[in-house]
Amino acid sequence: MIIIMKNQTPTREISAVISRIENLGYRVHLSEGEERSIIGIIGNGRPIERDQIARMKGVEKVVRVTKPYKLASRDFHPQDTTFTVGNTTIGKSGLTIMAGPSAVESRSQLMESAHAVKEAGAHILRGSAFMARTSPYAFQGLGLKGLQYLADAKAETGLPVITEVMSPELVPVVAEVADILQISSRNMYNYALLNAVGRQQHPVLLKRSPSSPIKDWLLAAEYILNHGATRLMLCERGINTFETETRNTFDINAIPLLKQLTHLPIFADPSHGTGRWEIAKAIALGAVAAGVDGIMVDVHPHPEDALADGAQSLKPKRFVELVEQMKGVAAAIGRSVDH
Amino acid sequence: MIIIMKNQTPTREISAVISRIENLGYRVHLSEGEERSIIGIIGNGRPIERDQIARMKGVEKVVRVTKPYKLASRDFHPQDTTFTVGNTTIGKSGLTIMAGPSAVESRSQLMESAHAVKEAGAHILRGSAFMARTSPYAFQGLGLKGLQYLADAKAETGLPVITEVMSPELVPVVAEVADILQISSRNMYNYALLNAVGRQQHPVLLKRSPSSPIKDWLLAAEYILNHGATRLMLCERGINTFETETRNTFDINAIPLLKQLTHLPIFADPSHGTGRWEIAKAIALGAVAAGVDGIMVDVHPHPEDALADGAQSLKPKRFVELVEQMKGVAAAIGRSVDH
Amino acid sequence: MIIIMKNQTPTREISAVISRIENLGYRVHLSEGEERSIIGIIGNGRPIERDQIARMKGVEKVVRVTKPYKLASRDFHPQDTTFTVGNTTIGKSGLTIMAGPSAVESRSQLMESAHAVKEAGAHILRGSAFMARTSPYAFQGLGLKGLQYLADAKAETGLPVITEVMSPELVPVVAEVADILQISSRNMYNYALLNAVGRQQHPVLLKRSPSSPIKDWLLAAEYILNHGATRLMLCERGINTFETETRNTFDINAIPLLKQLTHLPIFADPSHGTGRWEIAKAIALGAVAAGVDGIMVDVHPHPEDALADGAQSLKPKRFVELVEQMKGVAAAIGRSVDH
Amino acid sequence: MIIIMKNQTPTREISAVISRIENLGYRVHLSEGEERSIIGIIGNGRPIERDQIARMKGVEKVVRVTKPYKLASRDFHPQDTTFTVGNTTIGKSGLTIMAGPSAVESRSQLMESAHAVKEAGAHILRGSAFMARTSPYAFQGLGLKGLQYLADAKAETGLPVITEVMSPELVPVVAEVADILQISSRNMYNYALLNAVGRQQHPVLLKRSPSSPIKDWLLAAEYILNHGATRLMLCERGINTFETETRNTFDINAIPLLKQLTHLPIFADPSHGTGRWEIAKAIALGAVAAGVDGIMVDVHPHPEDALADGAQSLKPKRFVELVEQMKGVAAAIGRSVDH
Repeated sequence: MIIIMKNQTPTREISAVISRIENLGYRVHLSEGEERSIIGIIGNGRPIERDQIARMKGVEKVVRVTKPYKLASRDFHPQDTTFTVGNTTIGKSGLTIMAGPSAVESRSQLMESAHAVKEAGAHILRGSAFMARTSPYAFQGLGLKGLQYLADAKAETGLPVITEVMSPELVPVVAEVADILQISSRNMYNYALLNAVGRQQHPVLLKRSPSSPIKDWLLAAEYILNHGATRLMLCERGINTFETETRNTFDINAIPLLKQLTHLPIFADPSHGTGRWEIAKAIALGAVAAGVDGIMVDVHPHPEDALADGAQSLKPKRFVELVEQMKGVAAAIGRSVDH
Repeated sequence: MIIIMKNQTPTREISAVISRIENLGYRVHLSEGEERSIIGIIGNGRPIERDQIARMKGVEKVVRVTKPYKLASRDFHPQDTTFTVGNTTIGKSGLTIMAGPSAVESRSQLMESAHAVKEAGAHILRGSAFMARTSPYAFQGLGLKGLQYLADAKAETGLPVITEVMSPELVPVVAEVADILQISSRNMYNYALLNAVGRQQHPVLLKRSPSSPIKDWLLAAEYILNHGATRLMLCERGINTFETETRNTFDINAIPLLKQLTHLPIFADPSHGTGRWEIAKAIALGAVAAGVDGIMVDVHPHPEDALADGAQSLKPKRFVELVEQMKGVAAAIGRSVDH
Repeated sequence: MIIIMKNQTPTREISAVISRIENLGYRVHLSEGEERSIIGIIGNGRPIERDQIARMKGVEKVVRVTKPYKLASRDFHPQDTTFTVGNTTIGKSGLTIMAGPSAVESRSQLMESAHAVKEAGAHILRGSAFMARTSPYAFQGLGLKGLQYLADAKAETGLPVITEVMSPELVPVVAEVADILQISSRNMYNYALLNAVGRQQHPVLLKRSPSSPIKDWLLAAEYILNHGATRLMLCERGINTFETETRNTFDINAIPLLKQLTHLPIFADPSHGTGRWEIAKAIALGAVAAGVDGIMVDVHPHPEDALADGAQSLKPKRFVELVEQMKGVAAAIGRSVDH
Repeated sequence: MIIIMKNQTPTREISAVISRIENLGYRVHLSEGEERSIIGIIGNGRPIERDQIARMKGVEKVVRVTKPYKLASRDFHPQDTTFTVGNTTIGKSGLTIMAGPSAVESRSQLMESAHAVKEAGAHILRGSAFMARTSPYAFQGLGLKGLQYLADAKAETGLPVITEVMSPELVPVVAEVADILQISSRNMYNYALLNAVGRQQHPVLLKRSPSSPIKDWLLAAEYILNHGATRLMLCERGINTFETETRNTFDINAIPLLKQLTHLPIFADPSHGTGRWEIAKAIALGAVAAGVDGIMVDVHPHPEDALADGAQSLKPKRFVELVEQMKGVAAAIGRSVDH
């Protein structure tokens, strides 16, 4: 249930409503807008007496919310969520570009990648030190050594860093280096991990599981937000379908739909969303036209030698072209790619 | 197998190669480019002796084609297919917009729609007289009377008309009115119908079945092309997935992929691809950015009263906005929406 | 809406209720059980006044039916549908086995197959003369000549014959030879064909489209039943999923679910449902344990030479084993496989 | 690559082959059969010289294995894996029944369930103390207190216990009470957890992710086996498809397919595989007929009050009926349900 307060309600009336609800045994989420405030009630299972609240001072109306997610929903939090990572503001009209190799493979590979993506206009450097691979015999990442290289690349280029975390006990360790913690698609349903990153109160990018309906994805976000974390982004990266020509089917419908349902910034990963670099560029542009707040893309100086995801990685030269085209498409819909 | 001829090979050498292959019992498809010609061989099941051909005059090389479709593939026909319907050229840099109501419901509804979409910039009027509906109790279309209304709307507005054909015996009847025959998604696997429209030698738009891999779709196109028809377009309209928030999942990956695999013009139907008008606009723009040659969109003057697909139909006012935004996105990728 | 009449209501009261409803402009479906009759009302879009009917003599209660299919639903027709084809009764406790080659390839191949499946215990001979193939270059069937061979095999073995029909205009032709008309999965959404077979009033087996939810499948059945046809069977043959190890995913859940939702006999096709003969046997047994009324299975004397579906065809020897095991499983759930 | 040794090769020759391979830098898996031994080589990325090995004493042939999983594959380990949990042998001809409530809700609820399923013939008690729930607001399980109740139920009934583990750090804690560790479908791709349970060397049941192809599932098993663990079972519980009438689509094809591909025991969970108790029974019987080694089923004394999965839970009375019917079907295929 949400309580929509009248325009310009004085703080003391808002507080009174909040106290009343908390006294009834419920948790409360306050969203303060320019003109009016909205108070969200997070249920405890028992029904609440609507009339009791509706009659309080300053209350305009009480609306039942039937969506199973609350903190993630736009009903509870009508304004877009925006926040800053390094010098980059996420969720405003300027698009955010995260780029870099799928895996951190060596110090030199990462440095070369970091300089290339920075020069092309990326705002954030991506690269996994810990990797979720389908086969135990595939390259599992450099682990702590990879984290150190990420710290070095950040120091040298000034780019904030996003990297994956796979295990609850490593969350504090990874958070020391990473500006953004990435939950990979394979771990979207790993609730022990979601709880751990929620408790860390660090920026998080939550990828969609290839088998997740949008509802389950927003509920996974809710696990994180439920710990008080707020700096959370969602990243569409393709879903599982019968089509075998592409690694995944990039669900572009999810972009405008999420913009309706949630206030969280939405990203697109056209590299995993297709599995093929030749078509990833077109999907990145499509995602921008459809309204994403940023993209995350695999860029590798030598894709043919990549230890992971080479087939879907752009060469730096192609990435430069992509950023240029993104600027044009962004401008056409009233947004920008700043550098 | 395809035979790539040397630059500027004289016609008589090309003819000699073709004769040789036909004498071996194969059918041949000749694609003449600006500089070089390509001869495609359509197998008869028996293997062909490659060296025999490779040694002939003018032959540069002989390449095995492993794709199961031939006439539809870009290997056989490297240049983009383009053709004219009414005053509109399809498949060139200018995008084609097909718009109108899902169903022809009455003379006045169709006329109102036709004028509205023409004014907003549509090039072709859509509207179904015969309708494939999941339930036998749903509105099945006005049939022949609907066809007559389409002819009237065409006469009055000058817009060419696209409409659905569902049954082999009705192909000649529908082709008398329709400038383009539409095969709906439910009939993509209806080979008797594909053969009938192929024989008609009329322009055709072939929608993708919601359960069709791209390979099956191109093979369905091959059924039509195999009768000598050439004016064929493909239209992505969403596939069947586990996601239930949207009617279908619009497969944007298919757009750049098809551009690689085939020379046929590619369209997008964001109305069926989403089932929801509020998000259809974003998908239309995404499809343009990803490289389609045109879009087909449901526009209805009074969606709340529509006999079919009201939830996914744009009001004319929204459609005007969409066309404006399409122009911007098209320009950003070096294309246009002419009017 | 359905009207449940009291036990032993006299015919004249039933007729009165029917007349009243028809006078209100609705169609009626009467299902007469051992003890009580049920009158189904097929809507005309306008609401009906429930109380008006509820007060009539003999009416026990009036129940709203929210399912979109009516004639196919068990609410309208509580008893299992059963009927006879040749000497075989379909839909009773004895299971029906349809077997034979995917394609009729030659007179001798069909005769050899027919004798083999008859000897092993099959009740009905299957074999396609007209074939829906994904590629126009694949074997399309022998057509009318194949039909003739089926007539010959029927004359020689006494087995009733089921064969595919793909085009409305061929329905009467195929029905002259076929004891059962088969609608293949690719044509489940071909409503022109469904209407044509419905009008023919011949026994029909309707395969599920690999992309069809159960609801759409029952609505496709409704298209046929809506013409007054009653001898209709459904056949589960696998759906489209992300799994690539098997050609389709056999949806065993559909079996008990359909038994709840509809009165029509349910068949299973483990050959198409798996695409692999080595696992088809296990699926056939699973389908029997889950409650099907019969199976349809590809049997070919020389699968390695088959012109279609060789990989999923059982050799006659394996088919004999399957029938033996089916008898055991059928007995375990109180059914039988008679010979 | 696998090395098939000749019949009755003396141990010293086998050891010589193993030493040679290990000296080349590879890991080895020895599978000793009644008559012959098979040595599996787990690659290190570099190619191995086949001829070198093929010429050694006792080697019959060297076969390339192209499957990405090794320890899980039947090529490496031709015999069925069998092992004992409590008094129950898993993987032999007698089927194993695991039953109990989805969630441990209270001491009394668990005790009542435990006695009921024991009496009906279950061999192992199931019940989750830690629960993976889609919503953070749903009942998350009793945690350590729930584990204690499981220990109590085990002490009182003598039934071994299977329960879920969701987090690497809880693996040793859960393993103190649980006879079998369950990895739920949502955690199949949680590689940190798979590694942790692999290191624990405890019996494990690995459920399939609803979005996992069979290949990914066997690779997840490989993660566990790669730590030297051997007592591993797989459990099919339904996959994600477009069908919405059932919670999941139970993939019965997976059963005979896995029997070919792997030596690990296969279980079926008809409760999650359908989401509906009324059809779960038919699916359980189907799975038995198709060849599973056991089933896992939700049984709750009062499903209407269940805190989780009530709609898919059988009442004890229905469970008794199911066990009886399972005996019949098992006997029909030469297996049994012992008690």
